[in-house]
Amino acid sequence: MVTAPTLAEIEEARTRLEGVARVTPVYSSETLSKLVGREVFLKAENLQRTGSFKIRGAFNKLATLSDRERRAGVVAASAGNHGQAVAWAARELGAKATIFMPQDAPMAKVEPTKSYGADAQLTGATFEDALAAALAFVESSRATFVHPYEDERVIAGQGTIGLEIAEQVPDVSTVVIPVGGGGLSSGIALALRAVKPGLRIVGVQAGLDGWTIADGIFVKSVGESTGRILDEVLDDMVAVSDEEICSAIVLLLERAKLVVEGAGAVGVAALLSGKIGGEGPVVALLSGGNIDPTVLISVMRHGLTLAGRYLVLRTRLQDRPGELIKLLSSVADKRANVISVEHHREGMDVPVSESEVELTVAMRDEHHCSVLLESLRSLGYEVERLR
Amino acid sequence: MVTAPTLAEIEEARTRLEGVARVTPVYSSETLSKLVGREVFLKAENLQRTGSFKIRGAFNKLATLSDRERRAGVVAASAGNHGQAVAWAARELGAKATIFMPQDAPMAKVEPTKSYGADAQLTGATFEDALAAALAFVESSRATFVHPYEDERVIAGQGTIGLEIAEQVPDVSTVVIPVGGGGLSSGIALALRAVKPGLRIVGVQAGLDGWTIADGIFVKSVGESTGRILDEVLDDMVAVSDEEICSAIVLLLERAKLVVEGAGAVGVAALLSGKIGGEGPVVALLSGGNIDPTVLISVMRHGLTLAGRYLVLRTRLQDRPGELIKLLSSVADKRANVISVEHHREGMDVPVSESEVELTVAMRDEHHCSVLLESLRSLGYEVERLR
Repeated sequence: MVTAPTLAEIEEARTRLEGVARVTPVYSSETLSKLVGREVFLKAENLQRTGSFKIRGAFNKLATLSDRERRAGVVAASAGNHGQAVAWAARELGAKATIFMPQDAPMAKVEPTKSYGADAQLTGATFEDALAAALAFVESSRATFVHPYEDERVIAGQGTIGLEIAEQVPDVSTVVIPVGGGGLSSGIALALRAVKPGLRIVGVQAGLDGWTIADGIFVKSVGESTGRILDEVLDDMVAVSDEEICSAIVLLLERAKLVVEGAGAVGVAALLSGKIGGEGPVVALLSGGNIDPTVLISVMRHGLTLAGRYLVLRTRLQDRPGELIKLLSSVADKRANVISVEHHREGMDVPVSESEVELTVAMRDEHHCSVLLESLRSLGYEVERLR
Repeated sequence: MVTAPTLAEIEEARTRLEGVARVTPVYSSETLSKLVGREVFLKAENLQRTGSFKIRGAFNKLATLSDRERRAGVVAASAGNHGQAVAWAARELGAKATIFMPQDAPMAKVEPTKSYGADAQLTGATFEDALAAALAFVESSRATFVHPYEDERVIAGQGTIGLEIAEQVPDVSTVVIPVGGGGLSSGIALALRAVKPGLRIVGVQAGLDGWTIADGIFVKSVGESTGRILDEVLDDMVAVSDEEICSAIVLLLERAKLVVEGAGAVGVAALLSGKIGGEGPVVALLSGGNIDPTVLISVMRHGLTLAGRYLVLRTRLQDRPGELIKLLSSVADKRANVISVEHHREGMDVPVSESEVELTVAMRDEHHCSVLLESLRSLGYEVERLR
């Protein structure tokens, strides 16, 4: 039975983390503040060691194990940040770590885990398989299982972020925290309730209907204990869509110069879509930055398309020399930058005398898209906008 | 005739910048330190306001104009960070700014300039056209032209970064600085020579043979005055290629969670390719983060391809139902993730009974690429690796 850590326990965790975890910076964002209509601050925990907040809880847990327990090693089941964090904390404290993850775990997370010296066991197709293997291993060894959130020490470790926010933004009135299993959010909210009682605290979830880009907070539900704590300490809980998350990731990348993973961007996504409520200065926690670069590319393309910065169009050309050049020149005239050309000479609906062309073009904005489409149509092209 | 600012002038600049420019953080990078074989620190000036160091020099310049000069307004010619910085500094000081840039200036730089309240004049095809228009405007108005680097106040402003580095990394032995016009590098080197005489200071250039992804430092040559200063204060000057820069950008994105533009990544690129020399702790300055997202996507794809994380292959299939599914299943068996499929039924070398398929696949690393290619060949596919 896990109970809520006290302020004293969170402060102890902070002492343990001194010189170990970074006190991550807080940035004000002019762009975001304008868009949201209130002062917005970003707590950049994506710049934490290992790229996420998870080392705070993992280190606080491992540091409080007995020497014998530490010698016996620690075990985690995680395809993500928790696994990396346990591996890292174990190395810092001289313990052996075995991390179980599904076979398909993204390279961006497997590689660092190994590089911290952990034994990475890629096993089974799903997270549940990896978890079962981890628990079986704990049974057969004397190693300690480190739960990602249902653990007082872990919750206390994550809570140290709350103490930092209170000091870094003294006049904060609202704090927005990503919610997965609930360890991060309950820790931060407990800390803030203790040191800043009047604050509005909002949790943000994603993927309630299934798969989400915010894989870091994708769990079936919050934990039993953390759920009970959250009922007490949160003012509100809201949910965001993957579209909203993608836009937030691109905005943070483009304007704040920060790489943020899906789970780390849900707070900004909720702010941008007006779901947070309250007024006055607001802090959004960017909980992590571990996003696979191939996924990031897809997210960026999607985000740029949503913002009218990518245009995909289809049209037809007379199948004779020079027609493609003519089309491309018309596009260049409007100062649009062609990214890819697909040219098909056959297809169900394409007459023999014509060929079909699909262009992907980088644009300035939605207005630029309209200008280009109109111009092509006025030149006689039948243009279909695909995205 | 521009002379080198003194330490006292750089310190005055620092006082002016207090509460205006951010004291940007310095991060140690475990991954980079391992790769380079010495302790590597990153001075994250990409997290500066406006996304680059340029506001330091611009603000120091504008703050020292007389009231009358400031009322008459300031002018810059810049398709990039300098223009944004002058626009931003002018707004902070209540001056009017007119920024001239070529018509093709990337949106990532035009938009912010406007949002800081400057008059953005998109004029002419090249930078030289924009510069000519700016100088003509200065002639006809009484506005002050702000040079991006041939100016003592600008150099002194950039030099404040040197003072910060000396304090943030007291045991630094080598500092690596991007070199474009030479304002940044001469300012920092002058400051460091004054407060840390024994230090090794290396400048890094790019695009010596023409176009470069590092557009922020792409100039025909360093300035006349800054060039003279650099001859005095730099220990060495090296150059990096765009391939090296792309790999550095991807590494910084993936491991440091920082978005860095081409010019900002040249120091890390030079370190990774073993060009810097010296030993002991080294600081690489990440000078800016203003990279157009569409460019960043291309850079990431290129960087990931170089790292064996993208594989593009071509093969042929018997032109009958089920063959494509069979191929894709074989790829999935090796746990490789297909990103795009191009399927052609005709082509110069394709027999009538066959069709050609081009697959782009996300891979773990170069070894994973070999495993997949071998497996497909052993299944009888004739496979050509395109990238």
